[in-house]
Amino acid sequence: MLIALTGGTGGAKLIEGLSHEVDLAELTLICNTADDFVLNGLSISPDLDTITYTLAGMSDSAQGWGIRHDTFTVLSQLEKLGGETWFKLGDKDMATHLVRTRLLREGFRLSAVTDRIRKNLGIEARILPMSDDRIETRVETTEGEISFQEYFVKRRWQPEVKRVFYAGVEKSRPAPGVVEAIENAAGIILCPSNPITSIGPILAVPGIRAALNRATATVVGVSPIIGESAISGPAHRLMAAEGWEPSALGAASSYATFLDRFVIDGEDEKLRGKLEALGAEVVATSILMKSLADKRRLAREVVALIEK
Amino acid sequence: MLIALTGGTGGAKLIEGLSHEVDLAELTLICNTADDFVLNGLSISPDLDTITYTLAGMSDSAQGWGIRHDTFTVLSQLEKLGGETWFKLGDKDMATHLVRTRLLREGFRLSAVTDRIRKNLGIEARILPMSDDRIETRVETTEGEISFQEYFVKRRWQPEVKRVFYAGVEKSRPAPGVVEAIENAAGIILCPSNPITSIGPILAVPGIRAALNRATATVVGVSPIIGESAISGPAHRLMAAEGWEPSALGAASSYATFLDRFVIDGEDEKLRGKLEALGAEVVATSILMKSLADKRRLAREVVALIEK
Repeated sequence: MLIALTGGTGGAKLIEGLSHEVDLAELTLICNTADDFVLNGLSISPDLDTITYTLAGMSDSAQGWGIRHDTFTVLSQLEKLGGETWFKLGDKDMATHLVRTRLLREGFRLSAVTDRIRKNLGIEARILPMSDDRIETRVETTEGEISFQEYFVKRRWQPEVKRVFYAGVEKSRPAPGVVEAIENAAGIILCPSNPITSIGPILAVPGIRAALNRATATVVGVSPIIGESAISGPAHRLMAAEGWEPSALGAASSYATFLDRFVIDGEDEKLRGKLEALGAEVVATSILMKSLADKRRLAREVVALIEK
Repeated sequence: MLIALTGGTGGAKLIEGLSHEVDLAELTLICNTADDFVLNGLSISPDLDTITYTLAGMSDSAQGWGIRHDTFTVLSQLEKLGGETWFKLGDKDMATHLVRTRLLREGFRLSAVTDRIRKNLGIEARILPMSDDRIETRVETTEGEISFQEYFVKRRWQPEVKRVFYAGVEKSRPAPGVVEAIENAAGIILCPSNPITSIGPILAVPGIRAALNRATATVVGVSPIIGESAISGPAHRLMAAEGWEPSALGAASSYATFLDRFVIDGEDEKLRGKLEALGAEVVATSILMKSLADKRRLAREVVALIEK
């Protein structure tokens, strides 16, 4: 079983590539849930949804979120009725949130709900939330403390960041199957997701980092950063705010205790020495994924590094 | 202030007519809420919604429920995800249920939620639920006990009815403003709605029938039945099951203690004697409302009977 730790956008690109290159019945995704939030009374899990839609072949990969060709009729009407509309919920997407919200209220755990949704969409790969417990990435800015979704989507990552933390993580437990999946994996991939707000929360769930340290499988990470900027999103800003080096090196440093191989962009060849000093084998290639061909090629390279 | 007691479909036709004939700022609707139910985790109030959409000029009056030109994208996706789809929730309609569900969960009363929705839709008339308490019309059939929505929509009124009752009504109270509206009304209209499942539950809320008995305003009722069949829906079947005469006479009988004038169809002229014996003045006209012109003409006749 191949497992991948992932957030939304960046990770989803590699997952899309992987979905064409590996046996999906042998793939388990462990997803960040610290961006989950409630809007208009609906329980929304942005990263779980992006990964689910990606694996169902429904995702809008051009825009990086939501469902391809989705419509926004409910949202337009919600606006007239005074609902919250800063997070663009499509109509088909809404159905996912309705089902999730109802099942959670009926007492089902997020992991069970996620599994039911992926099965109903005919997805063969297993999708696990990092935890069934409520964990929330909070961003302390010069304009006050806000959730990551508010920072990222509503405020378009403009406020200056002082600190990032994962509310509720101390008392959280890994979702059922997460630790076992890591321990028994034949290979582990760290997707090119935000190391602070996507992979970071997963590693912060008590027990997950220890399982990775213990795991015997090869761990291959892919940098989400080229030069000093994240390929998409605000990772570099959050890393700088947290005192990390805002580069592939900063990302790799946070994975150093369990990282075997790290894939960086050719442009970052200059970091090779410092990266190797972390104890990881460094592979430079093109990590920018624009086309499906890019995604599949990088996925093949990552799988080859695991099997090497 | 003119007030009207109403359910959904049949009542909405007269309300549509009234909305063109009277000053909406002087109109208060008291709506049945005993058909309210929860589906896919959403709190749905079919009669409140039909009346709200009618007054907002949004209703699909051809089909008798929902919003004109609505789409069903969420519902189609819900079907794939294993959600309940026997009640046809349109996308725009969904926005109403989302707002209502969220506000109810936040602790707002149904009357406050209803008022907020109608104001956001620019409706001048006041719309009051009969009660803020949960009351549910239950139908005991030869195939078991079901809710009225299940009987009416899911089972298409096919099971044989043994008994109808309003669960929770004994402990319910009229919503704020209902009793005052009745007591201070300049005229009271009983819309041509199902006397068992639409007007019946309103009258069963402790305090409402007494307020009608006390009211000094002229009370004009419109029969929902021509001959021995309801103009739409299963009223006659339910009336027969409850031992009422399934005719205009059965409907009028249940309003007799406060009814001043009763409007029947010309076809039911033969009932005049028995209806007059109930103490009401009887007016025979055409009560079938197919076109907007029919609705406006009947509304004008009803208003004239109040002002007479």
